Amino acid sequence: MAQDNLTAILYKAQDMRLEQRPIPKAGVGEVLLEVTSVGICGSDVHYWWRGRTGRFVVESPIVLGHESAAIVAAVGPKVTHLKPGDRVAIEPGVPCRMCSHCKTGRYNVCPDVQFCATPPVNGTLTKFYVHPADFCFKLPDYVTDEEGAMLEPLSVAVYSCQRAEVKAGSNVLILGAGPIGLVSLLTAKAMGASYIILTDVNQSRLEFARQLGAHGTLDVSGLTPTEAADRLKKIFPHAPTAIIECCGQEDSYKIACLASGPRGIMVTVGRGPYDVTIPLTLAAIKEMDIRGIFRYANCYPKALSMVSSGMVDLKPLISHRYTLTQVLDAFDAAKSGKAIKVMIRVKEES
Amino acid sequence: MAQDNLTAILYKAQDMRLEQRPIPKAGVGEVLLEVTSVGICGSDVHYWWRGRTGRFVVESPIVLGHESAAIVAAVGPKVTHLKPGDRVAIEPGVPCRMCSHCKTGRYNVCPDVQFCATPPVNGTLTKFYVHPADFCFKLPDYVTDEEGAMLEPLSVAVYSCQRAEVKAGSNVLILGAGPIGLVSLLTAKAMGASYIILTDVNQSRLEFARQLGAHGTLDVSGLTPTEAADRLKKIFPHAPTAIIECCGQEDSYKIACLASGPRGIMVTVGRGPYDVTIPLTLAAIKEMDIRGIFRYANCYPKALSMVSSGMVDLKPLISHRYTLTQVLDAFDAAKSGKAIKVMIRVKEES
Amino acid sequence: MAQDNLTAILYKAQDMRLEQRPIPKAGVGEVLLEVTSVGICGSDVHYWWRGRTGRFVVESPIVLGHESAAIVAAVGPKVTHLKPGDRVAIEPGVPCRMCSHCKTGRYNVCPDVQFCATPPVNGTLTKFYVHPADFCFKLPDYVTDEEGAMLEPLSVAVYSCQRAEVKAGSNVLILGAGPIGLVSLLTAKAMGASYIILTDVNQSRLEFARQLGAHGTLDVSGLTPTEAADRLKKIFPHAPTAIIECCGQEDSYKIACLASGPRGIMVTVGRGPYDVTIPLTLAAIKEMDIRGIFRYANCYPKALSMVSSGMVDLKPLISHRYTLTQVLDAFDAAKSGKAIKVMIRVKEES
Amino acid sequence: MAQDNLTAILYKAQDMRLEQRPIPKAGVGEVLLEVTSVGICGSDVHYWWRGRTGRFVVESPIVLGHESAAIVAAVGPKVTHLKPGDRVAIEPGVPCRMCSHCKTGRYNVCPDVQFCATPPVNGTLTKFYVHPADFCFKLPDYVTDEEGAMLEPLSVAVYSCQRAEVKAGSNVLILGAGPIGLVSLLTAKAMGASYIILTDVNQSRLEFARQLGAHGTLDVSGLTPTEAADRLKKIFPHAPTAIIECCGQEDSYKIACLASGPRGIMVTVGRGPYDVTIPLTLAAIKEMDIRGIFRYANCYPKALSMVSSGMVDLKPLISHRYTLTQVLDAFDAAKSGKAIKVMIRVKEES
Repeated sequence: MAQDNLTAILYKAQDMRLEQRPIPKAGVGEVLLEVTSVGICGSDVHYWWRGRTGRFVVESPIVLGHESAAIVAAVGPKVTHLKPGDRVAIEPGVPCRMCSHCKTGRYNVCPDVQFCATPPVNGTLTKFYVHPADFCFKLPDYVTDEEGAMLEPLSVAVYSCQRAEVKAGSNVLILGAGPIGLVSLLTAKAMGASYIILTDVNQSRLEFARQLGAHGTLDVSGLTPTEAADRLKKIFPHAPTAIIECCGQEDSYKIACLASGPRGIMVTVGRGPYDVTIPLTLAAIKEMDIRGIFRYANCYPKALSMVSSGMVDLKPLISHRYTLTQVLDAFDAAKSGKAIKVMIRVKEES
Repeated sequence: MAQDNLTAILYKAQDMRLEQRPIPKAGVGEVLLEVTSVGICGSDVHYWWRGRTGRFVVESPIVLGHESAAIVAAVGPKVTHLKPGDRVAIEPGVPCRMCSHCKTGRYNVCPDVQFCATPPVNGTLTKFYVHPADFCFKLPDYVTDEEGAMLEPLSVAVYSCQRAEVKAGSNVLILGAGPIGLVSLLTAKAMGASYIILTDVNQSRLEFARQLGAHGTLDVSGLTPTEAADRLKKIFPHAPTAIIECCGQEDSYKIACLASGPRGIMVTVGRGPYDVTIPLTLAAIKEMDIRGIFRYANCYPKALSMVSSGMVDLKPLISHRYTLTQVLDAFDAAKSGKAIKVMIRVKEES
Repeated sequence: MAQDNLTAILYKAQDMRLEQRPIPKAGVGEVLLEVTSVGICGSDVHYWWRGRTGRFVVESPIVLGHESAAIVAAVGPKVTHLKPGDRVAIEPGVPCRMCSHCKTGRYNVCPDVQFCATPPVNGTLTKFYVHPADFCFKLPDYVTDEEGAMLEPLSVAVYSCQRAEVKAGSNVLILGAGPIGLVSLLTAKAMGASYIILTDVNQSRLEFARQLGAHGTLDVSGLTPTEAADRLKKIFPHAPTAIIECCGQEDSYKIACLASGPRGIMVTVGRGPYDVTIPLTLAAIKEMDIRGIFRYANCYPKALSMVSSGMVDLKPLISHRYTLTQVLDAFDAAKSGKAIKVMIRVKEES
Repeated sequence: MAQDNLTAILYKAQDMRLEQRPIPKAGVGEVLLEVTSVGICGSDVHYWWRGRTGRFVVESPIVLGHESAAIVAAVGPKVTHLKPGDRVAIEPGVPCRMCSHCKTGRYNVCPDVQFCATPPVNGTLTKFYVHPADFCFKLPDYVTDEEGAMLEPLSVAVYSCQRAEVKAGSNVLILGAGPIGLVSLLTAKAMGASYIILTDVNQSRLEFARQLGAHGTLDVSGLTPTEAADRLKKIFPHAPTAIIECCGQEDSYKIACLASGPRGIMVTVGRGPYDVTIPLTLAAIKEMDIRGIFRYANCYPKALSMVSSGMVDLKPLISHRYTLTQVLDAFDAAKSGKAIKVMIRVKEES
């Protein structure tokens, strides 16, 4: 086992440094992990550049990174389903296991959840990392480390599509063709959706969505919500009843309400301003559901099944690759808006 | 059978007249009904006073009234489950029976639904009225005509509470203590809710809610949404997860979002302005569902079961009674805001 | 329009004759259809050879056939969504539209449903046939008549997989690799199931299942239910929780109960003997659901979406083709057990 | 705190002795409890008299009792929501908190659940007992110790009624008027069921059911399943769609299948023989669900809400009371079949 533990530490906004940290030890039910691949999420970029994301603020040095795969380096007491050498994907949020939310299967809304790279909890941009074993999912040989890291955004998409009740034959509208919108596209297809349209203001993202299998796209640049909704109605065979909102913008919520069919469900994945003005009476008359999500629960096993069975191919989404020593370049690339998914290789390839 | 068919006809806003109309005939699958009791709904008052309710406008003379009970006077061909003399409650919305919404059990969102007293469809403030037999529900002897008429608002409440997933042990917040709020209170109790709080700005309505069994009430006059939500949090044993919004006001939606527990469901029963500003990101982070309703489907049988089994006692809600010839007095009373439910007796008591 | 109406009439067991019948007329809401393709179902073969299927007995001459596509020849009054020349798939069961089952979206359990080729209701092995327009689904150009006819068994599979709650990541066990088992395989894959195993006693059917994409198969010939379940447990990555039973045999139900994971759902699609002995306590302790199905409701639109979007390819299942004048050869082939799906071309190719 | 820890120890079938045991200590997240009231369950009687219940066998000395209330005597580290002196109800099954079942809210099917008085796990017929704090539910002042103990069978009933989808307006058939059947009656009423019938072969139990609010009862002594079902069909206003089977006998399952309406749900609460013969094809054609249950999950909070809000009054069910020193008399009474619920007072009344 390597004796160094190089770690990327964010001290404050725009001040991330690579330093050595002590190698931690696995406690009861935990595993010591040698991190292999970490994807950069929009929230990581926000923390790095602005020192905050929504209500969460960086108040003391923190390690970023929560889309991760690793190799088991050592197992703590009472760990039975993993052994050193196993490759795993890391589910980054660990709940209290005791509150009513945990007991009813909604551990993502546990008030005491510890989530990697959400202040003050450290993330995985470090060589050695300790995590509860039951939140590590063993990867088969034919699933790569990068795919393992991508199970995190895929879990968001699985959860969103579940909340939107995407099913065989669904007409699905996805607002926003960023990483989450694109992974939602792949997920909705795997769930049997028969018609999926993505919107965005970026033509190259929409072109990429079509390559990934979108049945249609709409560039909403310069369109009012009403205009955009009218065009969508003409493209869809049936008005969409599963709508995944990944922009977090008022106009986008409005398009969703206007374009939705009766009994449509909009899932609000994107995070927008605190107050949003929407046509709520129209949504009510259509019997729409507007459903929030906060991360995900119980989605890693499904996401892994979907990848390992070949239902979903995440590899085309990885557009940029860096090593841990290039971490600032990696964050620059992620911030540029030109990348789909930036992946950092933490463990040196042997 | 009486040969006259006295009918209250609304010609335009504030111009309702009593006139004779021909007695209609029951076609295939229909029944001729002698109307007994009709309750006045807020929408009836809107049509009468302003000539419109939301998007629906009175453009030609119309008969109001859609909360109704009647006696079967004659049955058309192919009617088998009803016979002359049967007392019935009238479900006022009749769908096309052929579209995808009708076939999937959501006939209330059928685009071709014909709903009593929604322009241009006539309602029941008339002595003789024809309706499809399968939308007439036979009343047992011990359920009164007025209770039969009240099955309409009770169906709204049943549907709302279902959409809000009220169940045994639920903590329920009802915003608005008007007729629908109060019937929702009775319904939530019958469904096993263990703690129900109503809000309003009218102290006497809240007092009445407590008499009907509310566990608590809050007068929100002069409170900001944040203040109101903070007080509600202190009153409830657990944060409410079933919220029935019956006001249709922006502040009320805000209170709902602020007071809701994780995974709470707000059902928007009240009709407010077209655009509403709400804290949507907060709702998303809590994984709230904001669910619209449009009338109801398949609720009359449940509503009747709840009344006939004694689970729900609607009689205390009827505060004012008039005859058909006093129809303008009845509407005046309903408009005054002092009545809970105004009931019009159409058929003379024998 | 052709003036003859050649029709295959089953007089009694093993007595089917081709005769001319008058061309019927489309009434209100109906269409006159020129039948193009009809698939033969196991129940058709039962009626032909034994004069009965389960509780249904041929007591007077009847036309068989209920898996059908057609061309609209004429439309009756009030038909708006179809016009002459449209190609359609025919949903064969037409309910009363008025009972509580119809109104709640479960029209398949309507006690008054009229189902093609279920005595005494005539089916579609006839040149001209009349049907309610809303139970005819327009086919796009790129969906063939035969695929249109195959929407019927596909609807059974869609309904079964829905009742079994097949979803992304599911481990699915399908007992029986006949036409319904195979269509269920295609459907489960389209719904995102990640591991599907079929059982049968016929090696060539299992080989065909593997060609269609089954992840594994098990020949249960000569195995006790316990032996079969033990082998299945070794093949599946996770114990199956969605089980589609298409054999209708006691041993098959037993295998399902023994192999099911906790909270597994077995859907009983196959029809077996009246009384069946199963390990019900074991099923209870696992919290299994044993769910019946009777035909399907609201599945034609989904089935059509799945075919037209390319999610499901039904064409490989059609193993034999005949014309209407070869109807007895077609039934012989279907009875032989060597065919997967036998298709009869009714309208001469032009 | 008393220094003795008198405990009832079952050495083998029909050999239960009162002995002193050391007082245990509360570990991290645990509480030391002074047991107040313990109800005797049928399974306790089975263990005592036969040394086994189903697949569970008494192979070493065991303490019985799992329907329990207690007073907190001391709290272990990290316990925050309880303090010495708090009165609590004890949920007896503690799962691993880490498997997929635990994480999805179905901890009752966790393969590693530790359940009081299920060999080899000790129960609560002892003065001092240690339990995880999050499986102890604080009782309000106005809920008695005995009611706290009764939350256990009430949780079974809540879970059963949930699985049977009992709701407002339901017609409910309960087979068996023993403690679980009777508690299910109270629960179904609290959930809004409008018509509930119980069957049994014991007239006095049926009489008691009527006193508790059953709308009807049927003595099935000497009736075939078909006769019993025919009589039930005549009594119910609508065929029951929620059926709670609490007998575990073949005839009882048959009555359920025969009497059920379309889409009816039978929940198998009673434990019968391993193999059971039922009319499965009939059940399939009706689209029945046959659903198993294994104990319950997440029901204690609901059960407590129902009792504390007055929706359910459990006190009339307690027919016999004993002290811990009278434990053999208590088991004799429970075994006699004449008791409804036998309650043992463990802590001396002060």
